[in-house]
Order: sequence, then structure tokens, then C-alpha cells
Amino acid sequence: MYPLTTTAISEAYNRVRQHSETICEPLETEDYVPQPVPFVSPPKWHLAHSTWFFETFILKPFMPGYQVFDTDYNYLFNSYYNNVGERTLRTDRGNVTRPTTRNVYAYRQHVDRHMSELLETLTDPEALALVELGLHHEQQHQELLVTDIKYILGHNPLFPVYKSGHNLVDDTNGEGGFATISEGVYEIGFNSDEFCFDNELGRHKVYLHEFEISKALVTNAEFIAFMEAGGYQDFNLWLDEGWSWVNDNSINAPMYWHKINGEWHYYTLDGLQKVNPDAILSHINFYEASAFAQWKGMRLPTEFEWEIASDHVNWGKRWEWTNSAYLPYPGFSKAPGAVGEYNGKFMINQMVLRGASVATSPGHSRKTYRNFFHAHERWQYTGIRLVK
Amino acid sequence: MYPLTTTAISEAYNRVRQHSETICEPLETEDYVPQPVPFVSPPKWHLAHSTWFFETFILKPFMPGYQVFDTDYNYLFNSYYNNVGERTLRTDRGNVTRPTTRNVYAYRQHVDRHMSELLETLTDPEALALVELGLHHEQQHQELLVTDIKYILGHNPLFPVYKSGHNLVDDTNGEGGFATISEGVYEIGFNSDEFCFDNELGRHKVYLHEFEISKALVTNAEFIAFMEAGGYQDFNLWLDEGWSWVNDNSINAPMYWHKINGEWHYYTLDGLQKVNPDAILSHINFYEASAFAQWKGMRLPTEFEWEIASDHVNWGKRWEWTNSAYLPYPGFSKAPGAVGEYNGKFMINQMVLRGASVATSPGHSRKTYRNFFHAHERWQYTGIRLVK
Amino acid sequence: MYPLTTTAISEAYNRVRQHSETICEPLETEDYVPQPVPFVSPPKWHLAHSTWFFETFILKPFMPGYQVFDTDYNYLFNSYYNNVGERTLRTDRGNVTRPTTRNVYAYRQHVDRHMSELLETLTDPEALALVELGLHHEQQHQELLVTDIKYILGHNPLFPVYKSGHNLVDDTNGEGGFATISEGVYEIGFNSDEFCFDNELGRHKVYLHEFEISKALVTNAEFIAFMEAGGYQDFNLWLDEGWSWVNDNSINAPMYWHKINGEWHYYTLDGLQKVNPDAILSHINFYEASAFAQWKGMRLPTEFEWEIASDHVNWGKRWEWTNSAYLPYPGFSKAPGAVGEYNGKFMINQMVLRGASVATSPGHSRKTYRNFFHAHERWQYTGIRLVK
Amino acid sequence: MYPLTTTAISEAYNRVRQHSETICEPLETEDYVPQPVPFVSPPKWHLAHSTWFFETFILKPFMPGYQVFDTDYNYLFNSYYNNVGERTLRTDRGNVTRPTTRNVYAYRQHVDRHMSELLETLTDPEALALVELGLHHEQQHQELLVTDIKYILGHNPLFPVYKSGHNLVDDTNGEGGFATISEGVYEIGFNSDEFCFDNELGRHKVYLHEFEISKALVTNAEFIAFMEAGGYQDFNLWLDEGWSWVNDNSINAPMYWHKINGEWHYYTLDGLQKVNPDAILSHINFYEASAFAQWKGMRLPTEFEWEIASDHVNWGKRWEWTNSAYLPYPGFSKAPGAVGEYNGKFMINQMVLRGASVATSPGHSRKTYRNFFHAHERWQYTGIRLVK
Repeated sequence: MYPLTTTAISEAYNRVRQHSETICEPLETEDYVPQPVPFVSPPKWHLAHSTWFFETFILKPFMPGYQVFDTDYNYLFNSYYNNVGERTLRTDRGNVTRPTTRNVYAYRQHVDRHMSELLETLTDPEALALVELGLHHEQQHQELLVTDIKYILGHNPLFPVYKSGHNLVDDTNGEGGFATISEGVYEIGFNSDEFCFDNELGRHKVYLHEFEISKALVTNAEFIAFMEAGGYQDFNLWLDEGWSWVNDNSINAPMYWHKINGEWHYYTLDGLQKVNPDAILSHINFYEASAFAQWKGMRLPTEFEWEIASDHVNWGKRWEWTNSAYLPYPGFSKAPGAVGEYNGKFMINQMVLRGASVATSPGHSRKTYRNFFHAHERWQYTGIRLVK
Repeated sequence: MYPLTTTAISEAYNRVRQHSETICEPLETEDYVPQPVPFVSPPKWHLAHSTWFFETFILKPFMPGYQVFDTDYNYLFNSYYNNVGERTLRTDRGNVTRPTTRNVYAYRQHVDRHMSELLETLTDPEALALVELGLHHEQQHQELLVTDIKYILGHNPLFPVYKSGHNLVDDTNGEGGFATISEGVYEIGFNSDEFCFDNELGRHKVYLHEFEISKALVTNAEFIAFMEAGGYQDFNLWLDEGWSWVNDNSINAPMYWHKINGEWHYYTLDGLQKVNPDAILSHINFYEASAFAQWKGMRLPTEFEWEIASDHVNWGKRWEWTNSAYLPYPGFSKAPGAVGEYNGKFMINQMVLRGASVATSPGHSRKTYRNFFHAHERWQYTGIRLVK
Repeated sequence: MYPLTTTAISEAYNRVRQHSETICEPLETEDYVPQPVPFVSPPKWHLAHSTWFFETFILKPFMPGYQVFDTDYNYLFNSYYNNVGERTLRTDRGNVTRPTTRNVYAYRQHVDRHMSELLETLTDPEALALVELGLHHEQQHQELLVTDIKYILGHNPLFPVYKSGHNLVDDTNGEGGFATISEGVYEIGFNSDEFCFDNELGRHKVYLHEFEISKALVTNAEFIAFMEAGGYQDFNLWLDEGWSWVNDNSINAPMYWHKINGEWHYYTLDGLQKVNPDAILSHINFYEASAFAQWKGMRLPTEFEWEIASDHVNWGKRWEWTNSAYLPYPGFSKAPGAVGEYNGKFMINQMVLRGASVATSPGHSRKTYRNFFHAHERWQYTGIRLVK
Repeated sequence: MYPLTTTAISEAYNRVRQHSETICEPLETEDYVPQPVPFVSPPKWHLAHSTWFFETFILKPFMPGYQVFDTDYNYLFNSYYNNVGERTLRTDRGNVTRPTTRNVYAYRQHVDRHMSELLETLTDPEALALVELGLHHEQQHQELLVTDIKYILGHNPLFPVYKSGHNLVDDTNGEGGFATISEGVYEIGFNSDEFCFDNELGRHKVYLHEFEISKALVTNAEFIAFMEAGGYQDFNLWLDEGWSWVNDNSINAPMYWHKINGEWHYYTLDGLQKVNPDAILSHINFYEASAFAQWKGMRLPTEFEWEIASDHVNWGKRWEWTNSAYLPYPGFSKAPGAVGEYNGKFMINQMVLRGASVATSPGHSRKTYRNFFHAHERWQYTGIRLVK
């Protein structure tokens, strides 16, 4: 969306900011509070933190005379920016009952009102770039809002419905078969003047050997075949860490799956449902993806293979695990100051996921996008594409 | 309150049940949710659990045709009664956002309406005894409500006010000096036909040697003297476990104390206040009580000394640590079934506290009452009385 | 053994010191090294620590011109005496391979040679009392040597034999039935001018109600009956902490018991043996003792009941769990300095055991002796006596 | 060393097997026993495990009538081969005092005698390949023997000398400056008919952009400059995980460094020494390597850059951290059965190190060798090479 006109940026700001609140609209006040595990944040926190970003990086430096809404909020709603002062410990977020959800919405209104006013006249390109970064940042938190809400409700013994018609996992594949990509030198990385994150930059060449890549993603039926063949019990299929994870946690199915009276069900945002065998598999981690590929006698694509093949396959419904570790591109350099903490410092012990999921916000996907999670995490809408 | 007339029991029921809701009246919805540490329960949970007690032990067995409010609630709001089925893991309570607080209040109304109806005609002495037990049980949770709310708000970086005028720690002692109790055989335990808990029964004789007991409790000023004399740094004063606790947790003051610009403050239900040197010390654990007594060259009373001396000293503002472990009286036997799980199974590795605190509900104290907590716990309104 | 002549103390010194080395005689060098769990110490450490006691508390203060064997040993072999300087962390003991076992024996010889010389002329009563304390201290470590060696060998998958003929658990009871002790005031505590530990002093009166106490200890056959009746599966029998211990550790038998081809075996110092049903039960903790008593409809004695009944029952083969917490007697006061750390600072969250076991050193038992362990510990030779 | 004659393989067998025992020659018996941290194994275990490899994969399948030395040893000395049966838990290795060191040497002699006999006539190429694998496997354990012995002795408060003249860290660099490697397609992976590990196979093409690589490794003086510039205190230099590691462990220097009277010393196999500023830095982990590179405004090489540049720089004294995660080459496929567990299952959350160290066994290095450790580990002889 670049170069943005004043009208376009205002429109984008309003649309993106509204979308966060739309996601939370079905929640009860209590649902905004807890942090059941360290990697899930309270919805209240997401709403406040994405607002804090605009207050801290745009209103404070660029709007003369701006008064912060509450001086305590920097301490409470900073996520991991060491450059911006002391933070609430991440694991304590679920115990901070004040400010209330009502206060957080008031905070959002305060910041939005000032942002609207500022955006009418803002022309400083650095500031505009930060606004755009803030909107993409908020979109990332929107996907986390969806998956964190699912985690909170899906681990409640009552399996409450988030909103009817939102199960988000009952989608099926298009065309099957394999696409062949031929050997050669290819270019990787972002290549346009629109927005991207810093980790996509540094367009560079890679050499790929010929490979065949599946056009469709693995379905529930295919994964049930793996389960029924004893996939979770055969150590030869698993990475050593994965095998420990399976055993330490007594894992025998994807996240949210429950066997009830002999039939597999899964929790969806529409409540507990029977597993649809034709739907695309979701909520598996890298260990499970890797073991499944091993069982099939295939492998996962690298992120480079994925990027080059992306025009020849159907993608968009799951974050697809690649067999690439999340590391800097050759020319990567991080920005100075707090914004430089955005991506680079996480480039260790995480795996890259490519594509986008049914929970990704509209307009927030592109084929060079590098998402990343730890190998054991599976609360995102993750899936498997195979290479042979 | 025994033997109770129908009117008296109904009146008691209404009064006690109302008091729980009065305690919660100043809370925001969010405050009802979290469980910041395993020993603190969400206020929402206390309100539901005390209601579950009446539904489970009275309405279900004694009211023909009673329909439970929600069949899932037994699973969610049972605390530790193994006889009544599977329980939510205690440490997960803070993540259960549904049923909502509004649902819990509806549950209370449902149960109260049926209890009122039942109490009009209830004459079965076993049932009446269980109603009375349920009210005392709810009063115990009322004190926990106060201390758990204090914990939740007092660990919020904003130090929010619970309710003006409720600091609960700014109270002072009456008469000082020591009372002398002479050597001899004394009787210990409950001795009336009114209500008591099973752990107070089995009235029996003990032999006490002569001792002198302080009429007043230790004040903040006295404890600051201990702190300034290096009490928290001198291992000779501490039990071995206590010394580990001090060092592992970097303890240098009672709970809720903060040194701000060189002056000691404490969090109260009325917000952050300067420590009042004349007020009675609160929020110390057994290790601290023991170390303080050691520093003074005195000791804590046993629970038997305390009970015999109780007519000669002023008590009622703090739960007073004794140097007695929580163990059964000679004739103790637990009741069959779930009610028998009330006290006996906790008789290991806890210390007895005697008296009552500023947070104890009206009508819920007597000199034979045996309260008990682990040696490291200090979120109750606890205090120190010395013996020499 | 008090008042001691010069000859008597020298003879006692030689005899006790030799006994420690006799216990270790069957060991391989490797057996002296590990600390498999924090509560078990390496045999090498026991030999050195008991020597360090004599060097630190007798040779250094009372023998002019004494040169310490190695200045690093104070740091390495102090156990828990904060008054005597910084200590090796207790959990690190198993990783200290130097000084070697050979060095430790040389250390013993060095200290013994100087002690022998000193004892020829020593008359200072304070020093003589410390020598006697040191010998009793070494005898305590001798029992720990036996039980720690058993732990190290008994947790080796090869179940190695310590020494033929040393199974130490194959002993049987004498006379059965119950002795009746009548109600009244009794005196408790040590009452002679011979040696005792400080925790036995402060002879005082207690009032006991009438009770009947078993003359014999519980046998393996009786405990197998409890196991076969589902004792480890019935939560109503267990203290709450005990029930968690059973479940968290999947406990279904005493320590060292293994079911092999449908038959119960136990590891003894003589290797793996079939359980002898007539032998006295051993290696159970307080939780198991308490659950067994509950299942029998009886209870454990208090330490006061035990002491008064001790002339009427057979004791000496097991440390018997009492239902008394380890707390100070009314007149207890700890000695100044390091020796004062001997007992008092452990008076919290431990239970008293009375009697003595088959592993107790000769001459190291008396009816006022107060042994103590945590409720979950069971690597000592512990047993059960019942009261009704 | 391929194709091997019968004489050559026998000679290699004898030489490699002897080298393990030479490394252990200066040890005391006690030093063979402990496992101070999970990633360090007891020397006794290394000696037995490398022997178990030959017994299990060669003698048992290929020598008719071979009798195993002890049937329990498979259980005790298997490391991580799930295909070969149940294993001792890795963290328990330090508590297994039997078999003794003497037994383990007898086990080695038993296996060596049979291997010598077998090698006289062995011609089966599969068996010969396994012998060669076993020797390379033993050489890997030889390097671990050195670093594990250093860990055990270097964490002893007495800092014992392993053997005079073996400090292994006091070596200096050769030529300085940078080598320039030009852009283009290069081939990566093993390319000969001699021995290599499976993870080096699958020779393939990569595209490299031009880079300059330092000919020398970072010295202690250069790292002290980083430390004195506040490198350990500046979060902007660190990966997020690394910053947590620094703070959680209060790190302020490389492993084995101690500041004594204001001067930096380090533990070497020759005892405690002053740090030599000209010597090559050692014992830093990936986080430290990455932070140092960030501070210099440079970066670490990828493993592909390293392999291509290896002919233009001096290497051999440290394992050099690369910025490549340990992942399979495009054509990687693991061997069937236990041997297939050698490398592939560890390809997650580890970083590749290239080169070889002063502790690497003679003949055990080549430029395609892919070593790998977790990012936080630093007990190997690791170093830093920079790229700009």
C-alpha cells in the first residue's frame, strides 16, 4: 500500500484498528484476562500493547504536546522492547486485572483520536513508515488474538463457543498432485517498494536442486492414517527432541483433538465438532510435521523452495512448516533503536513457516513473508506441505 | 447458635451469604478471575465453591426433586473433596473464564432460592448440622476472599485501592506487659453444645509449666527494630528452612512492604500507605515470627498455652503463630465421607495459628479455634505474641 | 559414659572411629563418590566430615600449634554449620572427586594421630564434652553411611551385594499383644549425667490419657495385606500430602521392593531377596505409616506415649514413626556458636522417630533419643508401631 | 583411510583404542565416576560406551559364537540408540558405581581381544565400514573425554591439575587480515571415497555472495576489549535467548574464567593460569560469539561460506561457531536401523561448528566435517571467526 496518500493511511488505520475490536466483540469481560501459558497473552493485553506501539513510537515523538494516557502503561504494555524501559514479566500478564478492559478501550479511543488528528497532516516519511509498521504489527497481534482466544476457550472444560460459524478449520484443499521445480539459481526476498518486514529484505540468490512439491496440504484423513499406523509410537520417525516431547506430554493427536466414544472430535471456535476427514490438518508442531513427512518417505520444503514454488501451488489456509531455521538473510542488518528489536533478536532456535492461515488478517500475506515459531508450538493454524 | 430455630438458621443463612457478596461489591469484573499463585483462589471461584457446598451436601441429598443448576459445576467448583469426583486442577483455576461472574451470581441466586424454600421446613438434625457447617465454611472463605483480593490488587504495579477506609492493618494494641500462668493440669478443646470444627473436639488434659505471656502483639516499630538490627541477615536467628526461604526469595521485610525514598510503605486495601509504627505487625510467616522471637530472647506460645492464657490477654486482630504443629487431638476421629475430608487430611507440615484477625467474619471466632497454614505463608493477617 | 577417664575416652575414640572405616571396608573406590539424591551423601564425604568435626572443634581450638591437614577442607567438608564459613552446596557433593578416598583416609589418620596425642593429657571439661559430642555425631553418620550405601547400591540396576550376611531386614518380632498405659502426669526427657543431645534436655511433665500400645512392630505380611486391600489406591486413608506423593511418584510398595514374576522381592545389603513375610516391615515413610494405621482403625503413638511405654514393649530394630512433630521441649535453648546449630534449627516440618534400628551403632540408643526426618523420607530403617 | 587393508584396519583399531586409555591415564579412580551436569558424561561411561559399540554392532552380528562380556552392559552403556533396547536414563549415569573402572577396563580388553581376532579375517564390507564408523565414533568420544574431564576437574574448588603441559588453550594465531571469496555457485559436501559421516553426504550446489573472512580467530585480548566495553551488559548486542541466558546465569566472562585480585585467570588442564591475551579465545557459546560479532559490526560465517573459504584461512585450533543451523543437506537420508540414529535425529535447535579443536583426535578432522552443539553450550574448545 505504498506510497500512501493521507486518505489511504487514515483509511487503513481506521480499518485495521477496528478489526482488532471486531475480533474481541464476542468475548465476555472475563475472557480478556487470563494467560494460561506463557506463550498466550490476555486479549486485553493485545489490545493495549498494539495501542502502546502507536503512542510510544508515533504520538510521543511526532505530536507536539501529546499527553500520554497513563504513565504506568509503558511499564504494563511494553512486550519485549528493552530500549523502552522496564517491562512486566511476560508470565505475569494474566494477573494484572487493572487497568480494566473498559480502561483499555478508553486508551484505544484516546490514542485513536489523537492519531486521526495527527494523520490529517503527517508527512514525515519516517513517521509514516512507523505508522505502517504499527498497522502490520497490529495485524500480527490480530492473528495472535484469534489463536490465544481459541487457546483460552478451548482449554475450558465447558468448551464454550466463541461465535457460531467461526470454526476456521473446516476448509478443504483444491487441486492435488505435485509441481516440479527445475534446478537453477533463483532470487529470494522482497522485491517491491511496498511494505515488508526487515527480515524479508536483502534480496539474494540461492541455488536450488530440482524438487517436486505437493500442490495441496495434508488433510485430517491423511494424518489419521499416520496415527492409526502407530506414528506417535514409532521413535524411528521422530527427531530426538520430538520423541521426548511426545513422551513427556503423552501426545497422541493434534492439539484440540479429543476422542469421544471412539470418534475424533476437535475444539473449534464454533465449539466441539467431529473431525472432518476432508478438511486440511491444523494445530500440529514442527516435530509432528517432520515425523509425518518421514513416515510418508518425503520431507518438508525449505523456505527457499517454498518461495520459488509458491506460484505453482495453492496456499493461504495454514502456516506451513518449512525445514529452514529462522536465520538472517545474507545482507540483514537491524534498524537502530527499539524498532530494530522487531525481528533480528529472535533468530535462534525457531523454524520458519511460510504462507498464511485462515486466521491471518486480510491484506497481511505475501509470498516472501517469514513467520517463525518454536518447534514445539502448535497453537497456531499450522499445516504440512510435502516435497519429494 | 445451637440449637437453632428455623428462623435463626434462615436468618443466619441470609446474613452469611450476603456478607460474601458485600466483600466482592467493590471489585471490577476482571478482579474475579486470576489465580496469581497456587494458594490464592479467584474471587469468582470462592463465590461458586461455597455455593457448590450447599448444593452438593444439602440440596441434592435433602431436597426431593432438586435440579442442579449446571452439571459441569461439580467438576469446576469442588475444591479438594476426592469423595465427590474429579476436580479442576487447583493451579488452573485462574484460566477458567466461563462460567462468568454473572453466571456465578445466578448460581448463587438459584441455590439461595432453593435453600430458603428448604429451610422453611427442614428439621432433619443431620441436614441442619450440615447447613451450619456450610455457613462456617463460607465464613472461612470470606476471610480468604479478603486476603486473596488483597494479594491480587497488592501485586498489581498500580496498587489499586480496594475500598477507601479498609486498610485493615492500621490498628493498635491495648494494654501491655505480661500475664503469668501457673503450672498445672489444664483442659483443652471445645466444651459446649454450639458449633465447632471437628479438629477442636476431644477435650483433653495437658500439663503446662509456668510461663509469662505478652498481653499485646508485636508492633511495626518493634519489627523495624529487628530489621534495623540486621535480623534478616543473621542466620543464627533463623530455622534452617527459614534461612533458605529468606535467601532464595531475597526477603528483607514483611509482605506488602516497599521502601520508597528511604521510608517504609505498605500496601493496604486503601492503597499504598506509610507504615504506621504503632500499628500491630501483620503479614509475616512462621519463619519470621520464630526469628523475631529468637532475637528477643523469647519464644512463641504453644497452642495449649495460648488457649489457657486467652482470657488474660487481648486477642482478635491477628492470627497468631504458635509453636505447635497442626496435629490431631488424642481422641480425634474424622467423619465418614466427604465432610471427613474437612480437616484431618491436612494434619502434616502445617503450624497452628490461634486467635482471629481483622479479616475474620463476625461471629467466626472462639478461643478453641485451630487455624493452620504452612510455615512459609504470609498472605493472611498474621501476627506475633511472645512468651518468656 | 560420663564422667570419662582419660583411658575410657581414648578407648571410645578409637573404637568409634574404627567402626566408620569397618562399615566402608567392603566398598569399591567408585562407591565412595556419588550423591544420587540430595539427602544421600557420598561415603567419602561422611568419612571426611566426621573428621573435620574433630579438627575444627577440638584440635584447632585446644591443641596449641596444630597444623590443619589442608586449608581447603573446611570449605569442602563442613555440612551445615554457617558459623564455620562458606560451604560446598549440598547437592554438589557427588561431583567433588578430589580429594580422593585415599586422601580422605590420610586425613583421618592425621587427625586421629593428633587426637590420640591430645587425649593423653586433655582435662578441659568443655573439650572433653566436645569430644564426646563428636563421637556421637560420628555414630549418627555411621547409620547414614549404612543407609546411604544401601541407597547407592540399591539403585544400581545390577543390585550389587554390599557384604554377604548383611541384609539387615530379615529380623522378626518377639512377643505380641498390647500393653496398657494408664492416665496421668508423666515426666519426659533425659534424666542422668551421661551424654545426651540438647533436644532431649528440659525434662518436663506431660499429661497422658490412657492408651494401649502394640508390643510388636508391623510385619511385611501385615503390610502386604494393606497393599492387597488396595491401601495405595484409597485416598480416604491418606493425608492430603501423602496422597499427592503416592500419585506423583506412582508408589505401590515400600522402598526397595520389586515385584518379579508375581512375587515381592526387596533389595538388601545381601542383594535381592524374596520378601520374608514374618520379618519386620522397613523403609516406609510417615505417609505410609499413617495410612496403614488409618486402615487398621488405629493410630501412631505420640513421642511422649512412646517414651513412657518404652519399658513395656520390644524396641530396637526400627526407627518408629510417631505422630509428633519435631519441636523444642518447653525449656529448650540452643548452645551458642556452631554447636548450637546441631538440632534446634531443624525444628520445623519434620516428624519424630523413636527407638533405634538395626543400622544404629552399638551404644547409640536410649529411650529419650529424638530422631527426626521429613514425612516423605524412607531410606532409613523405619517401622510402624500402633496405638489404639 | 579407505579402502583399508587388513593390516591398516587392525593398526587403526589398536591406535584409536589405545588413545582413549592414554587420555584417561592421569585420572584418579574417583574422576571416572561423576556426571556433574546432564551434558557431561563420566569418563568410565565413555570408555564403556565406545566399547559397547564394537560389541553390539560388530562382534555380536559378525563373530559366530561370540559371548557378550556381561548381559547388563547393553542396558548400562547404550547412549541413545532406541533401536537397541532400553537405556539408563542419561542423567543417572553419575550414580552407577558398578561396574567399576577396573571392570570397564576388563570389558575393553575382552572386546579388543575378540576384535583383534576377528579383524584378522574380516572381509565383509558392511562389517568393515562399521568398524571404521566405530573408530570415528570413539574419536568423537575422545574429544568429549577431554572436555568432560576438564569440566569435572575445572568445577572442583581445588582446581586440580590434569597433567602438566596440557593447558590446551595457550595457543596463538598465525597470519591476520581478511580473505575475499567471490560470488558464485559452489559445491558443498564430502567428495571422496574415504570415510565421512552421513550428514556430510549429498554433495550439492549453493550460491554464495561475495564475502570477506578473517584469516585468524578472535583472541582473548579482543574479547577482553568486548567485556571492558560493557558487552555483557548491552542487550542490543544479544539475541533474546542469549540475553536471558546472560541474566539468568549472571554471566560476565567465558567459561572457566575467574577474576582473582583484579586479574583474569582461567582453569586449564594444567591448573589455574593467568589469561594469556595473545592466545585464541575459547569456551564461549553461540550467544557470546553472536554478541561479539554484533559488537564488531561484523557477523559469523555460514557453514557454506566456511567450507568454501577453508583453504584460504588458518583453522584447526577451535570449533568455530557458524551462523548455520544444523539441518539436513538436500539429499540427506538416514541409514536404516540403529546406525541411522547417528546424526539425523539431532537436526533441530542446534548450530553447526566447523573446523576442529586442540582437543580433536589426530586424523579426525576435514573441511566438510559438521559438528553441532546447542547455542548455550560452551564446555567445548569453541572459538570465533568473523565475516564482513
